[in-house]
Amino acid sequence: MLKTTIIGASGYTGAELALMVAKHPNLKLSGLYVSANSVDANKPVSELHKKLTGVVDIPVTPLTDIEAVAKDSDVVFLATAHEVSHDLAPTLLEQGCTVFDLSGAYRVQKENFYPTFYGFEHSNPEWLDKAAYGLAEWNEADIAEAQLVAVPGCYPTASQLAIKPLLNAGLVDTNQWPVINATSGVSGAGRKATMTNSFCEVSMQAYGVFAHRHQPEIASHLGCDVIFTPHLGNFKRGILATITMKLKAGVTEQAVADAFHNAYGDKPAVRLFGDKLPAIQQVENTPFNDLGWKVQDEHVIVVSAIDNLLKGASSQAMQCLNLRFGYEPLTALI
Amino acid sequence: MLKTTIIGASGYTGAELALMVAKHPNLKLSGLYVSANSVDANKPVSELHKKLTGVVDIPVTPLTDIEAVAKDSDVVFLATAHEVSHDLAPTLLEQGCTVFDLSGAYRVQKENFYPTFYGFEHSNPEWLDKAAYGLAEWNEADIAEAQLVAVPGCYPTASQLAIKPLLNAGLVDTNQWPVINATSGVSGAGRKATMTNSFCEVSMQAYGVFAHRHQPEIASHLGCDVIFTPHLGNFKRGILATITMKLKAGVTEQAVADAFHNAYGDKPAVRLFGDKLPAIQQVENTPFNDLGWKVQDEHVIVVSAIDNLLKGASSQAMQCLNLRFGYEPLTALI
Amino acid sequence: MLKTTIIGASGYTGAELALMVAKHPNLKLSGLYVSANSVDANKPVSELHKKLTGVVDIPVTPLTDIEAVAKDSDVVFLATAHEVSHDLAPTLLEQGCTVFDLSGAYRVQKENFYPTFYGFEHSNPEWLDKAAYGLAEWNEADIAEAQLVAVPGCYPTASQLAIKPLLNAGLVDTNQWPVINATSGVSGAGRKATMTNSFCEVSMQAYGVFAHRHQPEIASHLGCDVIFTPHLGNFKRGILATITMKLKAGVTEQAVADAFHNAYGDKPAVRLFGDKLPAIQQVENTPFNDLGWKVQDEHVIVVSAIDNLLKGASSQAMQCLNLRFGYEPLTALI
Amino acid sequence: MLKTTIIGASGYTGAELALMVAKHPNLKLSGLYVSANSVDANKPVSELHKKLTGVVDIPVTPLTDIEAVAKDSDVVFLATAHEVSHDLAPTLLEQGCTVFDLSGAYRVQKENFYPTFYGFEHSNPEWLDKAAYGLAEWNEADIAEAQLVAVPGCYPTASQLAIKPLLNAGLVDTNQWPVINATSGVSGAGRKATMTNSFCEVSMQAYGVFAHRHQPEIASHLGCDVIFTPHLGNFKRGILATITMKLKAGVTEQAVADAFHNAYGDKPAVRLFGDKLPAIQQVENTPFNDLGWKVQDEHVIVVSAIDNLLKGASSQAMQCLNLRFGYEPLTALI
Repeated sequence: MLKTTIIGASGYTGAELALMVAKHPNLKLSGLYVSANSVDANKPVSELHKKLTGVVDIPVTPLTDIEAVAKDSDVVFLATAHEVSHDLAPTLLEQGCTVFDLSGAYRVQKENFYPTFYGFEHSNPEWLDKAAYGLAEWNEADIAEAQLVAVPGCYPTASQLAIKPLLNAGLVDTNQWPVINATSGVSGAGRKATMTNSFCEVSMQAYGVFAHRHQPEIASHLGCDVIFTPHLGNFKRGILATITMKLKAGVTEQAVADAFHNAYGDKPAVRLFGDKLPAIQQVENTPFNDLGWKVQDEHVIVVSAIDNLLKGASSQAMQCLNLRFGYEPLTALI
Repeated sequence: MLKTTIIGASGYTGAELALMVAKHPNLKLSGLYVSANSVDANKPVSELHKKLTGVVDIPVTPLTDIEAVAKDSDVVFLATAHEVSHDLAPTLLEQGCTVFDLSGAYRVQKENFYPTFYGFEHSNPEWLDKAAYGLAEWNEADIAEAQLVAVPGCYPTASQLAIKPLLNAGLVDTNQWPVINATSGVSGAGRKATMTNSFCEVSMQAYGVFAHRHQPEIASHLGCDVIFTPHLGNFKRGILATITMKLKAGVTEQAVADAFHNAYGDKPAVRLFGDKLPAIQQVENTPFNDLGWKVQDEHVIVVSAIDNLLKGASSQAMQCLNLRFGYEPLTALI
Repeated sequence: MLKTTIIGASGYTGAELALMVAKHPNLKLSGLYVSANSVDANKPVSELHKKLTGVVDIPVTPLTDIEAVAKDSDVVFLATAHEVSHDLAPTLLEQGCTVFDLSGAYRVQKENFYPTFYGFEHSNPEWLDKAAYGLAEWNEADIAEAQLVAVPGCYPTASQLAIKPLLNAGLVDTNQWPVINATSGVSGAGRKATMTNSFCEVSMQAYGVFAHRHQPEIASHLGCDVIFTPHLGNFKRGILATITMKLKAGVTEQAVADAFHNAYGDKPAVRLFGDKLPAIQQVENTPFNDLGWKVQDEHVIVVSAIDNLLKGASSQAMQCLNLRFGYEPLTALI
Repeated sequence: MLKTTIIGASGYTGAELALMVAKHPNLKLSGLYVSANSVDANKPVSELHKKLTGVVDIPVTPLTDIEAVAKDSDVVFLATAHEVSHDLAPTLLEQGCTVFDLSGAYRVQKENFYPTFYGFEHSNPEWLDKAAYGLAEWNEADIAEAQLVAVPGCYPTASQLAIKPLLNAGLVDTNQWPVINATSGVSGAGRKATMTNSFCEVSMQAYGVFAHRHQPEIASHLGCDVIFTPHLGNFKRGILATITMKLKAGVTEQAVADAFHNAYGDKPAVRLFGDKLPAIQQVENTPFNDLGWKVQDEHVIVVSAIDNLLKGASSQAMQCLNLRFGYEPLTALI
């Protein structure tokens, strides 16, 4: 049994991870932590997330000694803010822990990326270099050997899993940038009180247009420019991404379908629906990325649906753990 | 044209009042104010409430000189916190303004009420004594002559309009306290960022059980004890109150129906639906209180629906203004 | 491995059962059925309920030969209409199947109950007599030996689990009928297209006042009259029931708390929250019934929350199966 | 006072029209009609749409004699199915009525359009030819003189008002088709009971991809190909359209802003928000089309928000009436 620690257990993704660890036959929950000055410190996690009551009831401990935590853990999930992950990871890694980081701190190796999009200089370039990008279906070999897995963001997961099969098969005319329109549930903004998240203020709208940090994450890992327009939807969880692409001349409907089936035929966390385009509801509380598509003349539209807290965060992190330690990929996830 | 000022224009009820004043043929908007240290000070009101754009665009001015405001106003709506209303009203009244207070500061004349339920001593007992309680359908004569109208709370409006016809007609067996179960939209908590109002945390639940300040407001104005259990619902606006009462022996279904029709036959803001029980949707964005009821043996169940921001606050305030100045009761309201 | 069949697999409760059977280590799904003339016949169940894709994909077979089904099943769940369950159960039972019926067909042994509330004469009084009422926490011994378990309705589960501890402990003054106000998500009405269920028409409202068939189910099994007012809420799943009761003179807060803890201290599917009243969200997609309560003078208010499709239907059925066959009570449920 | 008749009064757009006619100082409601075999025939319109109670209470009459209706009306709104409008309009027009048709029957003059997209041959080509397209801000002169106004669809309104200023100013590189991603509330599907509209089935999804009849309506009136992907959202009313376009080389941010201000500076039903992108909530229950935009290098993203039942249907119809008869454009609309 791997001793498994979750840092950042007061948030929504931390709570999902705690439930998964409780269900996983090879993991033992060794600790839940929050930052030392959190108002939630020392409360039972089931008081913060009532649905955990009777399933996971241990308190969230204020994190004061990261070395001690490292020594007491085989595996650590970082469900923390970007800069916190950036700072905590090296100590954990040096102590030998395997780390699954749900933040953006180790996702993109590109000059000036962190100062520009995250507001801090990256001071651990060697770990950034060693980190495996945890897009599970496309990076299995690296993940299986990594000590640090940088789990992708929610929008990047839904977008890349939709685009990569066609792009990698050479079917896309990249002179016209793929247009990604995506709508996320409010939980994507985290567990906190803001006017934007206030119930009466939530209403469908675009945000972060031409300025969201997930655009360069997507473009960098695809190797292709994209236009990415995120929206806030009036629902709690889930992402629906609709992606419009120009196909190269002569690309057939069959070639598109083949590309998807070749990419995901043996990947249990991606479900292919062909021209039955998926709705968000079918992936809520599941670890799946559901994909559908339609072709007309030289355009293809791909629709991609995930649960932003699961395939867009926690279940993908656990999927990476399963790959890393040789368990069945959906262990503890269905 | 009456010069009309709204203090507390950054909140939801203030915004509704601003729209009403813009539509009212006898009122002229003379100013919108917020407290001097509000983060919203000096912003156009239509930036805070985008739906007002192009209809009411003037800024919300920080309130620094209440005497100057009083001198420039014939009528003032106080859509402010309880203690703020308590403090502002006397100056406005002494300068001759007619004041419609949407807070709880002048609603209940009962010893120890304010320290117990609102956390402050009432220091304006003479105005508390002179205030008319703005339950429009039941207090017309007082309202028509009052300089200060204390507009009832949202739950008290929906509850009292449902109970008073039967209680006043002597049909209710008050040995068993009427049981009021009511569910309010989230806007009832005001325009602010809290974890409770955070989109992902909102889910139907009871709150303030045996402890909500509207219980004594209801009981005091009814003259009858009640059990009042408020709930938070997962919707933006509206209240549905379901009230269970024991009837006195021998009271017939016809007597119940007659009591409602006698009370409200000539009141345009109350709509009677008999045994077609109302849903919240039918009163959203309307000034109406919709009532339905069913009788079985010695019990009656009354269902009462209002828009909490309108009949439960702003439209009732305007209805009181219309009564006070002799305009048609629903002027500017439909 | 018990061969397990679900009849009525096109509905929401059938889909939940299919997921549970797939997760249960001691059950093997032997068939999914719908009525012979269903428009859904022969479709993969995962086409009706897309979330099942990749987890349960077998087709829903039109039910033409109930004897053949019986011969091929050890256990049958009936997630069918009341009259269908009434008709199918005897054949299944005579062939030796153990039957868990989620309909109302075998719940109440009371003269004239079925003609009055369900619109049909009951013609299997011997099985009605033998059926165990599947209120899991209160009827373990009977369930453990029953061949036919009549799983309670959703409202009756939430209501009885809240009331029985106090009533059975002799704390309630039943001269005043307990007042149950409950709000259910729309899935309680089943998977079908009606104007009432139409998205734009759904808005909180009371229905079935003094006329809902769950009132006599509750009253009959409690042995106490109650006033039961169901409401439709604008959410998909979950029930919140708020119950107001008069306590006998002298009953203390401690006595109330003791009654709950005595009743449920060793029952894993009931979670006690004391004066932290539960919200619906915390039980969504869980098998739990969460209870909270408050006492003031001679009144107690109990709040009870369940997922209507789970503890109010499918998970309680599975909980009964677990009791019946000696498995851990929450096997396949968390 | 113009005698004003609404045919199709059982639907959502008909109900909105009835409210507007009641508020309009120059219109007198002369009749509400439904098709002769409607289940709603002869019911008070306020029974179908409870919010109308006390405001418009007349019954919806079964339509049996269109000539008689025509003789008794100056103005007729057709809030009917496409083929019904197609059939009714000529008789009304020949009798001298001015007709505002909210259906698609007279919107597009293009060969084979009706057989392909609406499933019927158009047999009134002369009226199709004479009809003014009721995109109010762009077709004032024609509307002011038309006897038949074909009010645009909801998506075409939101889309064209966003695209036309830039396209007509020659700023768009049309070699890359504009990509319109739009999400509509469920009321867009009309007042009816279907599984798709069933509360528990509604969840954000794309539909009608490459096949929606609004694509050719938009393309034909713009004179430019577009990719139009509609989505169903989990809300009752409103449309948010996000439109991505390539700008011609050298087009500046200022040129984009100028184009919008030139187009709409004097149009009260369009509100410009620059880079403050609009949310649906701010247009709910209003007659406005709110527009915001952002430019980056050679791409522009425009966000357009309307109430689908108002600016996308009924208020635009009334706006056309106001233009046609010389009233202020927003009469009866705010």
